[in-house]
Amino acid sequence: MLLARVAGTLVSTRKDPSIEGIKLLVVRTLDLDGEETGQSLVAMDAVGAGVDEVVLLAQGSSARQTRVTKDRPCDAVVMAIVDTWEVEGEERFHKYRGGGRS
Amino acid sequence: MLLARVAGTLVSTRKDPSIEGIKLLVVRTLDLDGEETGQSLVAMDAVGAGVDEVVLLAQGSSARQTRVTKDRPCDAVVMAIVDTWEVEGEERFHKYRGGGRS
Amino acid sequence: MLLARVAGTLVSTRKDPSIEGIKLLVVRTLDLDGEETGQSLVAMDAVGAGVDEVVLLAQGSSARQTRVTKDRPCDAVVMAIVDTWEVEGEERFHKYRGGGRS
Amino acid sequence: MLLARVAGTLVSTRKDPSIEGIKLLVVRTLDLDGEETGQSLVAMDAVGAGVDEVVLLAQGSSARQTRVTKDRPCDAVVMAIVDTWEVEGEERFHKYRGGGRS
Amino acid sequence: MLLARVAGTLVSTRKDPSIEGIKLLVVRTLDLDGEETGQSLVAMDAVGAGVDEVVLLAQGSSARQTRVTKDRPCDAVVMAIVDTWEVEGEERFHKYRGGGRS
Repeated sequence: MLLARVAGTLVSTRKDPSIEGIKLLVVRTLDLDGEETGQSLVAMDAVGAGVDEVVLLAQGSSARQTRVTKDRPCDAVVMAIVDTWEVEGEERFHKYRGGGRS
Repeated sequence: MLLARVAGTLVSTRKDPSIEGIKLLVVRTLDLDGEETGQSLVAMDAVGAGVDEVVLLAQGSSARQTRVTKDRPCDAVVMAIVDTWEVEGEERFHKYRGGGRS
Repeated sequence: MLLARVAGTLVSTRKDPSIEGIKLLVVRTLDLDGEETGQSLVAMDAVGAGVDEVVLLAQGSSARQTRVTKDRPCDAVVMAIVDTWEVEGEERFHKYRGGGRS
Repeated sequence: MLLARVAGTLVSTRKDPSIEGIKLLVVRTLDLDGEETGQSLVAMDAVGAGVDEVVLLAQGSSARQTRVTKDRPCDAVVMAIVDTWEVEGEERFHKYRGGGRS
Repeated sequence: MLLARVAGTLVSTRKDPSIEGIKLLVVRTLDLDGEETGQSLVAMDAVGAGVDEVVLLAQGSSARQTRVTKDRPCDAVVMAIVDTWEVEGEERFHKYRGGGRS
């Protein structure tokens, strides 16, 4: 799975019927320091994520394994909102304190 | 999913029978500013997209989850036409006004 | 799907029984101008493509959706021979006239 | 499969119900010399791996083929802890002696 | 599929039960001239390949379509040993004579 920050939302009215009612998020992927990697993509939302939240993305056929995305043409899903991660015993990101090595 | 602009169409008469009658589009992928990333590919059309429209691409096995592409050798499908997206609360692309930070 | 030119053929006598009788092609991927991108791979042939022909490749699990490749360990298939494609209303490649912006 | 070193752990309380109780590991991928390649990702743990252990990652739909990850939105799983590997007849990594060409 | 040369073997004692008894190979991918591309990975062996042999790799879900790898967390399999390939009518690699344009 990849780390990402929700950047915004996307609207489409003419689309395959299978994605009616699904929320589409624009996200930017992050590295282990919480910095943007330069890659962006569009993901379906399975957990009610908001703009600026740091999330976990599942891609490929695994993106269809949530209740929201089952049997839909979905190759990327936001399936968790991240609280915190640590690297080599040190906290690198905390939802309420942000990322970085401060 | 990836953002892309429809660049043109492709014709093939000798092909696997499973793709008879499917429209093939040539597309160029876009970044969050609506600028081309330099990557291009061929996608099947599930929504009647026209040249120059900005669309959403599903890839991999997820590209076979539309009515049009089910059980076909399709690894990329245009499954939505994009109206608008916004990033950090600001509109970045609008179907009738185009993209960019103007 | 990706555009590619068939560069040659590959022979293997010791292989998984599931690929007995399948023709293996060496291909080089192309961009929208019909120029080689520098990437090459081996694909199974579902349409009787010959050396130098420009073809369409399906990859991933979608490569197993032709009659020839069903249930085989195939992650890339030549599933169509390209006649022509156009970009922004202008023909970029034609089977009998070649590619380029001439 | 890719070689990787477990760098740390990740915590999420708001997530798709299908991943309740799954341990999430932050990993960095390695080359054949046991050196980091610069790529990192989040993987589910199927074998009880600890921080600093060198492991084997399965990705894509194959990441859902362990007892722990079956039917979950998982695109990367730690499915083995590596004891040793050798290249051209020479040991390149040993669990208790580390990596490198020393 | 990708061309690769078998570089060595990998041993793991603590692993998901589904991969018990499977031989794990360390491989380096090759280009059409038989030169290494710099990419390496770990693949399961379905054909009894030995170190230094040039082989064909299937990746993704297609890597689970051999008898050896069925239903296992396998995203790369050695499914054929290459005898020879030719490019533009000229032999580029032969199992007993090696590669290159000599």
